[in-house]
Amino acid sequence: MTGPRILLLNPNTSAEMTERMLAAGQSAAAPGTTLVPLTAGRGVPYIATRAEAQIGGAIALEMLAEHHREVDAAIIAAFGDPGLFGARELFDIPVVGLAEAAMLTACMLGRRFAIVSFARALGPWYEECVAMHGLAGRCAGIRLLDSPFQQVAEVQEEKEDLLVQLANKSVREDEADVVILAGAPLSGLAAKVAHRILVPVVDQVAAAVKQAEALLALKPRKATEGTFKRPPAKRVIGLPDSLAARITHSDGNFET
Amino acid sequence: MTGPRILLLNPNTSAEMTERMLAAGQSAAAPGTTLVPLTAGRGVPYIATRAEAQIGGAIALEMLAEHHREVDAAIIAAFGDPGLFGARELFDIPVVGLAEAAMLTACMLGRRFAIVSFARALGPWYEECVAMHGLAGRCAGIRLLDSPFQQVAEVQEEKEDLLVQLANKSVREDEADVVILAGAPLSGLAAKVAHRILVPVVDQVAAAVKQAEALLALKPRKATEGTFKRPPAKRVIGLPDSLAARITHSDGNFET
Amino acid sequence: MTGPRILLLNPNTSAEMTERMLAAGQSAAAPGTTLVPLTAGRGVPYIATRAEAQIGGAIALEMLAEHHREVDAAIIAAFGDPGLFGARELFDIPVVGLAEAAMLTACMLGRRFAIVSFARALGPWYEECVAMHGLAGRCAGIRLLDSPFQQVAEVQEEKEDLLVQLANKSVREDEADVVILAGAPLSGLAAKVAHRILVPVVDQVAAAVKQAEALLALKPRKATEGTFKRPPAKRVIGLPDSLAARITHSDGNFET
Amino acid sequence: MTGPRILLLNPNTSAEMTERMLAAGQSAAAPGTTLVPLTAGRGVPYIATRAEAQIGGAIALEMLAEHHREVDAAIIAAFGDPGLFGARELFDIPVVGLAEAAMLTACMLGRRFAIVSFARALGPWYEECVAMHGLAGRCAGIRLLDSPFQQVAEVQEEKEDLLVQLANKSVREDEADVVILAGAPLSGLAAKVAHRILVPVVDQVAAAVKQAEALLALKPRKATEGTFKRPPAKRVIGLPDSLAARITHSDGNFET
Amino acid sequence: MTGPRILLLNPNTSAEMTERMLAAGQSAAAPGTTLVPLTAGRGVPYIATRAEAQIGGAIALEMLAEHHREVDAAIIAAFGDPGLFGARELFDIPVVGLAEAAMLTACMLGRRFAIVSFARALGPWYEECVAMHGLAGRCAGIRLLDSPFQQVAEVQEEKEDLLVQLANKSVREDEADVVILAGAPLSGLAAKVAHRILVPVVDQVAAAVKQAEALLALKPRKATEGTFKRPPAKRVIGLPDSLAARITHSDGNFET
Amino acid sequence: MTGPRILLLNPNTSAEMTERMLAAGQSAAAPGTTLVPLTAGRGVPYIATRAEAQIGGAIALEMLAEHHREVDAAIIAAFGDPGLFGARELFDIPVVGLAEAAMLTACMLGRRFAIVSFARALGPWYEECVAMHGLAGRCAGIRLLDSPFQQVAEVQEEKEDLLVQLANKSVREDEADVVILAGAPLSGLAAKVAHRILVPVVDQVAAAVKQAEALLALKPRKATEGTFKRPPAKRVIGLPDSLAARITHSDGNFET
Repeated sequence: MTGPRILLLNPNTSAEMTERMLAAGQSAAAPGTTLVPLTAGRGVPYIATRAEAQIGGAIALEMLAEHHREVDAAIIAAFGDPGLFGARELFDIPVVGLAEAAMLTACMLGRRFAIVSFARALGPWYEECVAMHGLAGRCAGIRLLDSPFQQVAEVQEEKEDLLVQLANKSVREDEADVVILAGAPLSGLAAKVAHRILVPVVDQVAAAVKQAEALLALKPRKATEGTFKRPPAKRVIGLPDSLAARITHSDGNFET
Repeated sequence: MTGPRILLLNPNTSAEMTERMLAAGQSAAAPGTTLVPLTAGRGVPYIATRAEAQIGGAIALEMLAEHHREVDAAIIAAFGDPGLFGARELFDIPVVGLAEAAMLTACMLGRRFAIVSFARALGPWYEECVAMHGLAGRCAGIRLLDSPFQQVAEVQEEKEDLLVQLANKSVREDEADVVILAGAPLSGLAAKVAHRILVPVVDQVAAAVKQAEALLALKPRKATEGTFKRPPAKRVIGLPDSLAARITHSDGNFET
Repeated sequence: MTGPRILLLNPNTSAEMTERMLAAGQSAAAPGTTLVPLTAGRGVPYIATRAEAQIGGAIALEMLAEHHREVDAAIIAAFGDPGLFGARELFDIPVVGLAEAAMLTACMLGRRFAIVSFARALGPWYEECVAMHGLAGRCAGIRLLDSPFQQVAEVQEEKEDLLVQLANKSVREDEADVVILAGAPLSGLAAKVAHRILVPVVDQVAAAVKQAEALLALKPRKATEGTFKRPPAKRVIGLPDSLAARITHSDGNFET
Repeated sequence: MTGPRILLLNPNTSAEMTERMLAAGQSAAAPGTTLVPLTAGRGVPYIATRAEAQIGGAIALEMLAEHHREVDAAIIAAFGDPGLFGARELFDIPVVGLAEAAMLTACMLGRRFAIVSFARALGPWYEECVAMHGLAGRCAGIRLLDSPFQQVAEVQEEKEDLLVQLANKSVREDEADVVILAGAPLSGLAAKVAHRILVPVVDQVAAAVKQAEALLALKPRKATEGTFKRPPAKRVIGLPDSLAARITHSDGNFET
Repeated sequence: MTGPRILLLNPNTSAEMTERMLAAGQSAAAPGTTLVPLTAGRGVPYIATRAEAQIGGAIALEMLAEHHREVDAAIIAAFGDPGLFGARELFDIPVVGLAEAAMLTACMLGRRFAIVSFARALGPWYEECVAMHGLAGRCAGIRLLDSPFQQVAEVQEEKEDLLVQLANKSVREDEADVVILAGAPLSGLAAKVAHRILVPVVDQVAAAVKQAEALLALKPRKATEGTFKRPPAKRVIGLPDSLAARITHSDGNFET
Repeated sequence: MTGPRILLLNPNTSAEMTERMLAAGQSAAAPGTTLVPLTAGRGVPYIATRAEAQIGGAIALEMLAEHHREVDAAIIAAFGDPGLFGARELFDIPVVGLAEAAMLTACMLGRRFAIVSFARALGPWYEECVAMHGLAGRCAGIRLLDSPFQQVAEVQEEKEDLLVQLANKSVREDEADVVILAGAPLSGLAAKVAHRILVPVVDQVAAAVKQAEALLALKPRKATEGTFKRPPAKRVIGLPDSLAARITHSDGNFET
C-alpha cells in the first residue's frame, strides 16, 4: 500500500526555506506519507506584508492549478496562509495553511498560544491571519524580535537565544500556555529549543503535516454546497494556462 | 485651480461595468473632481469568489503600480475590496474600497445596514469583507437573489423589481435601517429605486467618490510608522515591471 | 445653483469653540457648501461627562427642533455625539456626529485609530461613544493628557507639543495607524501638527463636514421603516415649544 | 431602627404608572424598606424612543438633584434606564435602573433571558439598553406585541393573554430560560401570570427594589477614583437650580 | 411568619472558612432570613484549580442532593461557582454562585469590576468563571498577590495591607470602578477595608445572600422548558444515594 | 519500534459505546498506534446534561489518575469534553477531547461547522462546550433530532436517514461548510453516510485519534509555567486513592 502524497507548497521563491520545511515535516510524518516539495518560481523570497501576501496567494493558486492532481492534499507553507481560502474553494483536495495548522494544534495544548517570530514587519499580517481564522480569543499575543538579522535563511541559528527568551517572556507576561515559533525560516527550531521553553512548543510544519494526515484520514468529499463548493465556470483573460483551465472548467479532460 | 483626480480602478475586465460606475460616480462628485476610469486588462469579467478576489487583488496592485502617480487618490471599484489593504500599504496615495466606503457611509444613516445583491455566489466573499472591516456588528444581513440572470451587465434592469422587494424584506425582517445595493453591476441603481425602498439607500460608487474626496480634504500624509507604512525594499522575481519597481524601491527615479 | 447648508450645532455654550470649529470646517468644505454655526444658549461650556452629555444631548434636540428646517443637514459638534441617535430619529435631515465622522473617516486610513485628547475626564465618555458606534475593534486606544490646563479655549496652543508626543506614543505603543485629535477645543490643530505625527491625522470637524456632504450627495430619504423612522405623535408636558411641536407632530403647518 | 428609604423615580409623567410600580415594589420590599414614589413633572407620559430617553434622562437628573438627599438609594423606574450612568456619576447614593436590575437578576435564573413587551416601538431603545449594559450575550431576544392597544395604563390587562403567549414563544423558539416582562406598564403582571409561563419570570420593579436593597447592604462608598467619581465643579447656564447647584458644587451648604 | 432558609454550601472541607462566610453573610441578611451552613465532608480544603473545581462541583451536587429539601434557596459558596449550572438544572430551588452574585452586584456600582485575590494559582479558574458568566466585557482584570502566605484561614489578616494596595492599583491602572475581594478566605474583609479603597467594594458572601433573597422575592418557578428544566430520569451506577435518587427520579417519595 | 498508546477513555458506563468508538478510531489510526479502551465503572450510561457532565468529568479524572502512566496520550471520549481542562492541568500526557478534536479538525474543512446529533437534551451542554473552546464564531449551529428513540446504542441505525436530512438542512439553511456527527452513539456513522451529505463530514473519534497522534508527533513537554502547569500538592479527604495520590503529589514513587 502506498501512503498519501502531500504537496508542501512554498509560495516564496527561496528554495533553502523549502528545504528546511521539508526536513521539519519529514520528521513528523507518519510512515508511508510522502511530502512533495515545491518552491514558487516567481514572487518574493519571503512574504512579510499584506501586499506580498496578496501577490503570493495568487501565485499559490497558480502552483496548485499545475500540481493539485499529483497529490492527495496540500500545505500552503507560509505562516499567514496566503491564498488558503481561495485554494480550498477552487480545488478538490484538502488544503491546509501553516498558520492555521499550528494555531489549531496549539489550541489542544493550552488556553492561549503565543506567536513568536523574528521580525516586526510580520506583525500586521500575522494578526490579520489570526482574526481571519476566528482565533483572536485564543491568541495570547504576537511577540516579535526587533533587531536586524543577517540572512533570513540563517535567522533561526543567529537568533536562537533571543527567540527562546522572547517565548518565555510571552509565557510569563502574556499568560501564553503554548508557543508557536512562526514563519517558514523558523521551521525545525522547535525540536532544538523546546526544552528551554517553559510550555509546549508547536513546530508549524510538523503541525501542518499531521493536520493534512488527519484530514486525509477522514476522506472528506469536496463540498457540493456551502461556501467552499467549486465555483461555476467563468471566462478569464490573461491568466496562466492551468489556472485558467481550472477557472473555466476546461480542465476536465485532464482528469485521470 | 484644478480639482483632485481620483482613479476609478475596476479590477474586473468588463469595460461596461467601468462605464456604469463612472456614470454613478460622476453624478456624486464635487465640482472640480475628475474621475479617471481604468479597466483590468486581465482577470475575470466579474469577481465573485475568494479565488477570483485573490487573483483580482493582485491585478489591482499591478494596475496601481502603473498608474498611482497620475492621480491623487484611488478607488478599488469592486464590492469586496480586493487588494485594498495591500494597496494602502504599498502606495502613498489614499485608497478606498467600494464596500468599505458604502458600509462606513451607511453607518451614518442607521444602526445596521443590509447588503443586497443579485447572486448567491457573492455571499461568502461579501461576508468575509464585512468581517475584515470589523463591521459585522453593524450589518443586519446579506440578502441575495437566488434566480439565474441573463447578462451581468444588464442585471440591474432585469432584476430591478426583485431587488427592491429584497431590500424591503431586509428592512422588515432583518431590521435594517439602511440598504446598500452591492456589486459593481448595481452601480447607479440606487438613484432609480430609492423612492421605492423604505429606508435610505447607499450607492456604492457615489459613496466611494465622496469618501475619496473626504480623505483628500484631510491631506493625509503617508504613514511612516504603524501597520501601513511602506514596506522596506525587497527582491522580486517574475513580477510585472511597475509592480516590481514599487516593491524593490527602484521606482524612486520615476518620481516627478 | 446654491450649495447645501449644514448646521454646525455646538451643544456647548462656548462661542469661542464654535468659532474654532467653523474655521476648521470651512477650510475643508466643498465650494458652495455653507456652514451655519449655532451655539447652545444653555448648558455647560464644555461637555466632559456622562451627566453633561445627557443634559447637552437634550439641549441639542431643542436646538435642532428650532433650526432643522433652515438647513439641509446637521453636525452635532461635540466629540462624544450627545443626542445623536435621538436626533437621527426625530428629524428628517441627515445628522452626523463629530466623533462618528472622525472615527469612520479614520477607518479608511488604517486598521486602528487612536483618540488623543487633552483631559483625563473625557475618557469614560469617549470610550462609551466608541462602543455605542460598534467601533471598539477599530480603536487602538484613548490617550489623554494628565496635566491641568489654563483655559479650555486655548488648550490646543498651550498643549501642542504634549499632544504631538502623545499622538506619536499611541502610534509606537498602541499600534495606531491613524490619530484623531478629539474634542472641540482641538479643532483645527491637525492642520498645524500633521507633519510632526508619524501617521495620518484626522481633524474631526473637517471629517464631519465631508461626511455631511457625502450624505447629502446620496440624497437619502427619511426612513419610513426601521429603527430611525419618525416616532408617532405623543403628548408632552413642559418641553420647549419647538421640541414639543416636533414630538406632538403639531409642527406640520410650519412646513414650506 | 428605621429601614432604608428608596426613591422610586418615574421619569415619565404618568402618575398611574408610578402607582402600579409602587404596588409591585412594595410586595417585594423587605420589612423596614420604604419606597418613596416620584413622578416626573414634565416630559412624556411614556418614554419609548431614543429621543424621549435623551430628554427623559435629563429630567431624571433634575429630579434626583432635588430629592437625592432625602433617600438612601434611587431606582430610575423606566425600562431602558434613561440617565442612569449620568446619575451614578453625579450623585453619591446608589442608583439602579429598572432594566439593569431585571436583567442582572434574570442572569441568576438561566442562561439567556427574553425581554417581552407590548409595543414594537420599544425595540430599538431596549436593544441599545441591553448592549449598553454589556449583556447582549445573555439576551435570547426581544419579543414585542405588534397590535395597537387602547390605553397604556391598562395595557397589561388588555394584552395579558397575548403577552403570556409571546413569553412562551420566546421560550420555545429563542431558547430563553427566563422571561422579563418589560416596560413600566407591565409592572406587577409577573405575579399574575407566572404560573402560565414555562420558565421563571422576573418582575422588573421587584427586581429593582431587591437590587437597591442589596447595594445598601454593601454600604458602598461613593467612588473617589474610576469612571464614576463625582465630576469636578463646572459652570452652567440656564439649568434648573438644584441641578445647577449639584454641577457647580454649590450644593455643599445644603448638606446636613 | 418565618423567613426563608438559605443553604450556605461550602464545597471545601475547611470548616473555618464556612464560619467566616457565615459571619459575613449574617451581617447582610434581612431580618428573618436564616443561613444554614454546610461544609463538604470530602474534597480539598480550598479549591483553586480546574481539576479541584471539577471534583468539588460534583461534591456540591452530592451535598445539594442531600439537603435541598431543607432550604428555600442555596449559595454555592466558593468563588468560581463549582457545579453551579448543574445544580441549577438538577434542583428545584434557586441556586446562586458566590462569584456570580458578586459580579452581577458589582455591575450596578460601576462599568468594570476588578477581581482581587490572594494567590496567583486562582487566576485561570477565575478567568474561566468570568467568561462562563458572559461577563468578560465588564471585568477590568484579575489582580492576584504573588507572595506565599502562612495559612489560608488567616490570609486576610496577614495580607490585608497588600490586598488594599492591590485593589487601589487595579483602580488606578485598570480603570476598575468596583473591587471584588474574591475567594472564600477573604469573606468579611470588605467591611474592614472599604474605607481604604478608592471605589465601592463588594463582599462576595454579602452579595450572595442578598441575591438569594432577591430571587426568593420573585418566587420563581422551576423551569419546565428551556435549558434549565429538570433532566428526565436516567439510570446511574455507583453514585451516592441521594444524588442517585435525584437523577433517577426515585426521590419523589421523599417529598414532604 | 512500537508506536504510541492512546487511552480511549469513555466517561460513560456503556461498554457498547466504547466498542463503537474503538472501531471508529482504529479505522483512522496510523500504523503502529494502539488504542486502549476504558469504560467508566460508575456514573451514567450516557452523559447528556450539565449535572451529568460535572459528575462524569470528575469520574474521568479518577480514571486518568489510575491509568495515565500506562499510555502516551488520552482521549476523553464524550462529545462535550467532560473534565478536559482539569485533566490537561493535572496530568503530564497530552489529553484531547472528542468535541475539541472534531471542531478543530472541522475548521480546516470550511468556515463554519454544524453539530448534528440525535437528542434535544444535548443542546445546552454542547453549546456551552463550543463556547468553552472559544469556537462560537466558527459554529453554524447545533441541529438536534426531536423525536424519541428506542435505544441509545442503536440510535445511529434507527435514525440514519433523519440525521442525513438534518445534516443537509444545516448546510442549506445555516450555511454550514462541514458537518460533525456528534455524540458517542454516532461514532462511525460518518463513514457510512458521508456520500449522502453535501459537504465534508467529520467523525469525532477519527478526528480525536488523529489529533492525539498530531500532539504526540510534537513531543510536547508538560508546561512548567502558564495555566496548565501541574498544581502544587494539596491535602485531600475522601477521594479515590489514585486521584488522591496525584493531587497530594504522593504518586511520585510510583514513577517507573
